[in-house]
Amino acid sequence: MDAIDVIRAKRDGATLTPEQIDWAVDAYTRGVIAEEQMSALAMAILLNGMTRPEVARWTDAMIRSGERMDWSALERPTTDKHSTGGVGDKITLPLAPAVAACGAAVPQLSGRGLGHTGGTLDKLESIPGWRASLSAGEMLDVLRRTGAVVCAAGGGLAPADRKLYALRDVTGTVESIPLIASSIMSKKIAEGTGALVLDVKVGSGAFMKTVENARELAETMVAIGTDNGLRTVALLTAMDRPLGNAVGNAVEVAESVEVLAGGGPADVVELTVTLAREMLAAAGVAGKDPADALKDGSAMDVWRRMISAQGGDPDAPLPAAAETHTVTAPSSGTLSKLDAYGVGAAAWRLGAGRARKEDPVSSGAGVICHAKPGETVTEGQPLLTLHADDASRFARALESLEGAYEIADTAALQPLIIDRIA
Amino acid sequence: MDAIDVIRAKRDGATLTPEQIDWAVDAYTRGVIAEEQMSALAMAILLNGMTRPEVARWTDAMIRSGERMDWSALERPTTDKHSTGGVGDKITLPLAPAVAACGAAVPQLSGRGLGHTGGTLDKLESIPGWRASLSAGEMLDVLRRTGAVVCAAGGGLAPADRKLYALRDVTGTVESIPLIASSIMSKKIAEGTGALVLDVKVGSGAFMKTVENARELAETMVAIGTDNGLRTVALLTAMDRPLGNAVGNAVEVAESVEVLAGGGPADVVELTVTLAREMLAAAGVAGKDPADALKDGSAMDVWRRMISAQGGDPDAPLPAAAETHTVTAPSSGTLSKLDAYGVGAAAWRLGAGRARKEDPVSSGAGVICHAKPGETVTEGQPLLTLHADDASRFARALESLEGAYEIADTAALQPLIIDRIA
Repeated sequence: MDAIDVIRAKRDGATLTPEQIDWAVDAYTRGVIAEEQMSALAMAILLNGMTRPEVARWTDAMIRSGERMDWSALERPTTDKHSTGGVGDKITLPLAPAVAACGAAVPQLSGRGLGHTGGTLDKLESIPGWRASLSAGEMLDVLRRTGAVVCAAGGGLAPADRKLYALRDVTGTVESIPLIASSIMSKKIAEGTGALVLDVKVGSGAFMKTVENARELAETMVAIGTDNGLRTVALLTAMDRPLGNAVGNAVEVAESVEVLAGGGPADVVELTVTLAREMLAAAGVAGKDPADALKDGSAMDVWRRMISAQGGDPDAPLPAAAETHTVTAPSSGTLSKLDAYGVGAAAWRLGAGRARKEDPVSSGAGVICHAKPGETVTEGQPLLTLHADDASRFARALESLEGAYEIADTAALQPLIIDRIA
Repeated sequence: MDAIDVIRAKRDGATLTPEQIDWAVDAYTRGVIAEEQMSALAMAILLNGMTRPEVARWTDAMIRSGERMDWSALERPTTDKHSTGGVGDKITLPLAPAVAACGAAVPQLSGRGLGHTGGTLDKLESIPGWRASLSAGEMLDVLRRTGAVVCAAGGGLAPADRKLYALRDVTGTVESIPLIASSIMSKKIAEGTGALVLDVKVGSGAFMKTVENARELAETMVAIGTDNGLRTVALLTAMDRPLGNAVGNAVEVAESVEVLAGGGPADVVELTVTLAREMLAAAGVAGKDPADALKDGSAMDVWRRMISAQGGDPDAPLPAAAETHTVTAPSSGTLSKLDAYGVGAAAWRLGAGRARKEDPVSSGAGVICHAKPGETVTEGQPLLTLHADDASRFARALESLEGAYEIADTAALQPLIIDRIA
């Protein structure tokens, strides 16, 4: 087999054979296919697509490039959630404890943010002492003790995906549904969860800008999961506006703790409960409602044990940024638009996100939204508060917010839960 | 400017701006755009195409990546030919001396063979002592003394193209008309010739398999040349069968010497004379016919001076392969097919060509065709003689020849000169 033959086949619109896919993924992992060859193949895949059997095989080959975790030693069934990424998406933080409080185990390998979308690990790292890196043995121990673990994936899991993801990031080949779907699903299947709920974001702040694209991605991922014996459900959810009021790292942890305490923004609560019910149903766990777990303190108990088990102090004050800048409402009326991408890019420029993988993030930086679309605002009231470690960051963040909010007579809102694909 | 933005623009079907093209070519030459980024861009160009202004700018940027040669010190006008490559295409060998004998100067920077197509420098290197590498000063000196020079391009000429060509070769991005046209034309314009005749090959043994593709490539190159003040003409010529009877290195030199002595195969003579007349007309040189130069010995005189000037001995015996194997005609009739690709691949497998740039070639290896399509053959007569340094090479070469020749009642032949584009 030869790299150029495989590239040419996809370039010329052919369906790759299972043997070509297995060879290509394995040869790339071993360095036999060079980076410049894989990037040409990735561009050909992006432009010419892949059939469903090709995507399934590609995913399978990426799983087989590394180890596959096994949670059969646990007494509880496992279930997990994956979000395709958005602005203010802190849902894992209240969700994992709520699901664990209802009797399932959540073994979540999570990631870091890049660009305007935040990363769950970056958010949790704003908690003093908390660490993201655990061995497989430590993961099992935390799961046994608390029912939920959120940590970084080890290098042995789907190494082909790790390598390909980094390559796609620098070669303009991220936005391919087959490559996105196989990347997500290879990691989740290798993670060893027994059930999976996908939260596919739709809108300006998401990778998928349209419902059509999001549905195609969701259907592709559900098919891959189902083919691999994983009970998989996908929800399409709104990412035209930020989720919740807080966008950043420590500010999102604080908002999550409010939800775990039975309060918090209505949209965060609704999405947490909806996803938790799907996760429990997919895992076959009945009897307790996650809405109750948030109200009766049982989810908060799991959260505190989970943070402590990974070295974090759930009672320690969270880092705060030194500087703030407030944007006020320019007129009175209904907030008809609060663009997720604009707010996400502002938070990124304030220091909450990173431009390159190696960059550090600021724990305290971010944006607090004082009103959500559909709410009434009065001229001069605080609309957004920007937080940064350094006031010099405000100017560029404010540029991101130009045109990102509008005040009108009425607001037409996308529903939070747009569709469900099973 | 950012590599990913440029890749995304072409990926999404946009026309690249002159600024994007200038930046991309320069940044790639300087190593700021990484190989894996350029290969993704090359694949996007291959699949989404380039407009004529984009190709012109891309070519210009590649020329500006290095030096441009200047022959204004010569008393004669300069003119050159470029062939897109084929099987048995030794035309430069009789052509350059014939044109020089008629009063123009031919400053040809030539290349080596890769895959089933031969390289002019490889052929000339089978002449004992001849060397391909000359400095610019040596080139001028040879041109002054003999009127023609054929040598390797120095590293300073279109370095962007040199880098990109090597990359395309391993990433399945060779077969893009904008990239082929800009690669050829950037080198030829940087070479400094005042006129250019393009021999665009069409058929199984050529890059362009169809007349439509060949015409598109020819028109693209003629437009680039004309835009750059270069008098440019293109001929589309047949490459469904080999050119001449000899395919290899030393065997093609021997056949070229026959043509310079006033003999040789009719198709080689016809193409040499046709291209020579075009080169002279494009250079504005009138008064002598290259057909006469081949007959009266004046082209042979230039050849001998040209070979000697580059260290070669025009009287030395050429290397011969140690082993031969003869393929005989399986029946009597008309040779209706002698496939250029099959014969070229056989010669390659016999050792005349190389699979990788670093590989050496055998001077003596090759194929002699004892009959050309349209000629009558008798059962049992020699049809092809294979030459190799090692008899173990015959088996795989014979595989390449399976189905490559046919004997029938009549033969329908493509004309040698298919079209002319000016």
